[in-house]
Amino acid sequence: MAAETDTTTPDQTTDDTVDQTTVDGVRAALDGPWKATRDELREALARTDLLPDPSLDLGPSRAKILAEMKELAANNFAAAGFRTEHGGTGDVGQAIVGIEMLGYADLSLMVKAGVQWGLFGGAVENLGTQRHHDRYVKDLINLDLLGSFGMTETGHGSNVQALETVATYDPETQEFVINSTTELARKDYIGGAAEHATVSAVFAQLVTGGPGEEPHSRGVHCFFVPLRDEKGNDLPGVTTSDCGYKGGLRGVDNGRIIFDNVRIPAENLLNRYADVAPDGTYSSPIESDNRRFFTMLGTLIRGRVSVGATAGAAARKALTLAIRYGLIRRQFEAPDGTHEIAILDYRAHQRKLLPLLAKSYALAFAQNELTAELHDVQSQDPDGVDPHRQRLLESWAAGLKSYGSGHASHTINVCREACGGAGYMDENQLPILRGDIDVFTTFEGDNTVLTQLVGKELLGVYSEEMRGLNAAGWVKFVAGMVGDVVAEKTAVRQVVQTLLDSSDENPDSSELTERSTQIRLFRNREEHLRRTCAQRLRKAADADDPFTVFNDAQDHLLKAATAHIERQVLESFIQAIEDTDSRSAAELLGKVCDLFVYSALEADLSWFLMHRHVSVERAKAIRRGVNELCEDLRPHARTLVDAFGIPEELLTAPMLVHG
Amino acid sequence: MAAETDTTTPDQTTDDTVDQTTVDGVRAALDGPWKATRDELREALARTDLLPDPSLDLGPSRAKILAEMKELAANNFAAAGFRTEHGGTGDVGQAIVGIEMLGYADLSLMVKAGVQWGLFGGAVENLGTQRHHDRYVKDLINLDLLGSFGMTETGHGSNVQALETVATYDPETQEFVINSTTELARKDYIGGAAEHATVSAVFAQLVTGGPGEEPHSRGVHCFFVPLRDEKGNDLPGVTTSDCGYKGGLRGVDNGRIIFDNVRIPAENLLNRYADVAPDGTYSSPIESDNRRFFTMLGTLIRGRVSVGATAGAAARKALTLAIRYGLIRRQFEAPDGTHEIAILDYRAHQRKLLPLLAKSYALAFAQNELTAELHDVQSQDPDGVDPHRQRLLESWAAGLKSYGSGHASHTINVCREACGGAGYMDENQLPILRGDIDVFTTFEGDNTVLTQLVGKELLGVYSEEMRGLNAAGWVKFVAGMVGDVVAEKTAVRQVVQTLLDSSDENPDSSELTERSTQIRLFRNREEHLRRTCAQRLRKAADADDPFTVFNDAQDHLLKAATAHIERQVLESFIQAIEDTDSRSAAELLGKVCDLFVYSALEADLSWFLMHRHVSVERAKAIRRGVNELCEDLRPHARTLVDAFGIPEELLTAPMLVHG
Repeated sequence: MAAETDTTTPDQTTDDTVDQTTVDGVRAALDGPWKATRDELREALARTDLLPDPSLDLGPSRAKILAEMKELAANNFAAAGFRTEHGGTGDVGQAIVGIEMLGYADLSLMVKAGVQWGLFGGAVENLGTQRHHDRYVKDLINLDLLGSFGMTETGHGSNVQALETVATYDPETQEFVINSTTELARKDYIGGAAEHATVSAVFAQLVTGGPGEEPHSRGVHCFFVPLRDEKGNDLPGVTTSDCGYKGGLRGVDNGRIIFDNVRIPAENLLNRYADVAPDGTYSSPIESDNRRFFTMLGTLIRGRVSVGATAGAAARKALTLAIRYGLIRRQFEAPDGTHEIAILDYRAHQRKLLPLLAKSYALAFAQNELTAELHDVQSQDPDGVDPHRQRLLESWAAGLKSYGSGHASHTINVCREACGGAGYMDENQLPILRGDIDVFTTFEGDNTVLTQLVGKELLGVYSEEMRGLNAAGWVKFVAGMVGDVVAEKTAVRQVVQTLLDSSDENPDSSELTERSTQIRLFRNREEHLRRTCAQRLRKAADADDPFTVFNDAQDHLLKAATAHIERQVLESFIQAIEDTDSRSAAELLGKVCDLFVYSALEADLSWFLMHRHVSVERAKAIRRGVNELCEDLRPHARTLVDAFGIPEELLTAPMLVHG
Repeated sequence: MAAETDTTTPDQTTDDTVDQTTVDGVRAALDGPWKATRDELREALARTDLLPDPSLDLGPSRAKILAEMKELAANNFAAAGFRTEHGGTGDVGQAIVGIEMLGYADLSLMVKAGVQWGLFGGAVENLGTQRHHDRYVKDLINLDLLGSFGMTETGHGSNVQALETVATYDPETQEFVINSTTELARKDYIGGAAEHATVSAVFAQLVTGGPGEEPHSRGVHCFFVPLRDEKGNDLPGVTTSDCGYKGGLRGVDNGRIIFDNVRIPAENLLNRYADVAPDGTYSSPIESDNRRFFTMLGTLIRGRVSVGATAGAAARKALTLAIRYGLIRRQFEAPDGTHEIAILDYRAHQRKLLPLLAKSYALAFAQNELTAELHDVQSQDPDGVDPHRQRLLESWAAGLKSYGSGHASHTINVCREACGGAGYMDENQLPILRGDIDVFTTFEGDNTVLTQLVGKELLGVYSEEMRGLNAAGWVKFVAGMVGDVVAEKTAVRQVVQTLLDSSDENPDSSELTERSTQIRLFRNREEHLRRTCAQRLRKAADADDPFTVFNDAQDHLLKAATAHIERQVLESFIQAIEDTDSRSAAELLGKVCDLFVYSALEADLSWFLMHRHVSVERAKAIRRGVNELCEDLRPHARTLVDAFGIPEELLTAPMLVHG
């Protein structure tokens, strides 16, 4: 009611200073190198009809998303994700940023697009060879071919190496025979498998022999497997079913697939990293099964990067809704009795939202750097990529996906609650976002497993050999390393090095507002945790039960990883400020960075105190500092959410009209 | 698929020790004084058809819940909530426990039942007089009369005293004329208003004059207002509409109501605490508008208690699902290479779930005490209730609702994530629970507002006069209090006093495993925060802007309140162990209580360190202690969730069959 009739309600309190120059400067910093892509999509997505419609049941929701994808395809949305020689336009960064922007409209659209073009398309592009590129890439870009990504099984999600689907080579017919060997081998949660996908990139244990050789498993490989005929009926031996209702993402048709002696021609092996000769002889340019497996997975990293990026967009959208509501919603009388107080003027409300806003900024800058690095690495000749650089990229992608999606899920929860009853109404979008974002902490890698992966890399000095070891094996590996586990010397970026060089080395005596002090606190925490964790694990060299040693140190390992990720994020933020042209924008971003730092320190204050990295006096200053920074940034809250540049149409919410 | 065919999968790992005697002993402790009610409902609710069906759209979902309520009514479910002289059976505790148990089946059923019998029924029972009791109570118990609770408006939820609906007395016709005076005066989120309710207990500013007196507002009162005719059409002047899709609670028909000169007879004023004579003269046994308002609200406390209780049930159900899944779900190879490890054997997984399990235990015991106290207070002659006892009860109810619903929402989020992809499927219930529980942190009082209320009571020494003051007024009140704000001497329960008397007074030198040390740490924190917060606020006596003083201390005030609530919860837990007959149960509960304490200390460790309530060495012992207690309790995880006694039918989840 009010939504239609009352448009005169002021939507800002008087002490809000929205200076368009600053907004533009901050937005330019946030938009990063693919600003043009973002601006194009801002225009293209400025349509309320792209928002999820909660009144639609599964079928119509899925149809709506598919129709929207077809519109995107018609505008050549997906071409950037594929190499020019395969029929694309070859701009990886643009592809990621494009997917990320879809998150402002509907996360189902992002996920379904990500499955089709990022995961399925990525498998064909990166694991296939020319025969696959020639036949499939153009069709999958324009949606003449709808695919799915058949990796996860009911029994195995995190431990992909233990998948139980088997593809056995039959030299008689020169076919692979695909089977779900156990009940838990059923492919599960597969986007597209319930309705739309006609094919799937299926991950299975490849079993083959060769002349005079017993058939045996060569590890997990990927196969192009048709699922449905033109009428949508399952092909012989294929049984698909529907996952049905979920916690969100209603527009994505997740399903299950069971294979019963499904035969596919030999050429359907995506054979970039391994091949099977007509007689069954297995060959691969990579000798180690383990290394081959992780090399193949490594090429599929784009999905993980997209998920982290989109989680960031979802958090920014929720914060925009909640902060704008906090500026117009008033409750309880002001001291002068003339009006009620805007809820964002309460310290408790500021403390709920503004530190999350600061962290969202930090993550946005870190994500931009990750996207750019992915772009650089994947724009090279694939065979020329430095494996070390690839490993760093993978670890960074895992870390940001975990840190970012955890942040997004938490932030959207807080934003919902910060909007009270209005926040619970689908018309105000927050509950839909909340349901959709939830699984971002799970898919493309469970966050705990990913954080642990970062920790292991950190302690394993990025060693090739340790990959794929079980917990006990990994601990033994670390324990067996000669002497101390030394932190890898990664290049320190120039801006950080300069700050460190020109400042007091003792972080306890230098000002906490100094960027160099902040960097040292984050760096010292990381190094302390890494070193002490390694010390604990070295005990496993003599232990009867290395798994217990690992398990006892698991929380320590996860904490070391998080400290590492957070330090990287901080340094990205500092870099972004350094690179910002607008002085007013840089100044404001400096404050936001301070709030990010102070609230991160506050959240981990017990650790800093226990390990004497901050004194009690400094700890108290940190708490006070969070309050003061909230107060300082409160008048810029509107500027900071406007700078995200989310199309107004996608922020449609009656609560923003009547408060 | 697997769900139907494979029922032989072992659902426990071998080192699980489920001893039925201990389960029974723990369950008896948890069930508390209304064990018989719980057992009856366990039997009555053991039906899978009571679980929410996510395939139903709004209409059918609402119809399903209404039909279930009618079944409950046919079994006289609601009679316990009403006094015998009004047609009930008068067992308040039974009424609360009954509502709480519904939470194991479907939170929509609990909410809809709570609105009808707790809120609407409670308003008629507690704010009405004999003419209302005689006409309505029997009908509302058996659902011949479907009501709603018309309190919240679009513009006012937390600040009920500022509602903008107005009921003006017209002496000509001896009627009240109800009007929504502004767009924001629209009643909003009202359960039942969208479809089923034919009447509403409407809260509105009562305006009346009297001979020779200008009509003016007498504050908020409650009116019995018909909304719909027998065909379900809005009555003249009433415009209802539907809130539509929400974040959860699909079976509850929340709606909006606008009143345009709706006339109701004078007798429809629920006139227990105030009346209007035919000539318009206003009278009330309570002179102060403010005191009258809070007295009226105080009688409606049952809703808040039910919401806290049910949030506890929802958290227990989610933990049962997630822990049972953690015991059968295996991922990544064990050191001996023969099998994969049950995920609950990982320390990180234990650390996610077991501290939340311990807190759920603590809350269950605290809730039982609150329910018993409410029962005692509300079983007395209403006019004979000690106002001080009533105030303590209200503060405790506010605190437990906030602490408990926050815990439930967080716990269900964690449980969903702990079950990975399976946790995101509605068939496994967790996403539905997650959507439903979300608004429990908002309705029956926003958690931040409620926590602040507890803090204000704590600092205001439970003073009558301070109620209803705005922030600035309240700060001035506290600042103006003579000398130090002394903590109210509430009776210390015997078991706590005995523990304190017989132990070392210095908590830093006594063992942390001692219950007395634990109590002292919690009590000292509370007292420290209360005292220092009062000191800060006293500065407002000289301040120009007392609101700023208040705002600067708001986080301090909230923290003091939380420390108070947590201390009360701990003492309830200790009492429950003391009262437990079974030795094995008491022993196990002792460990659970330790984990509750250690993880609560860990969560607030920075405070304890900063204020030197624990040393660095002790802080490290606390972290280690959480890990050790997780390890100790891991083999009892199944026992601890079995002891909740949730009917197996309500734990239906395919993931618990195939893992």
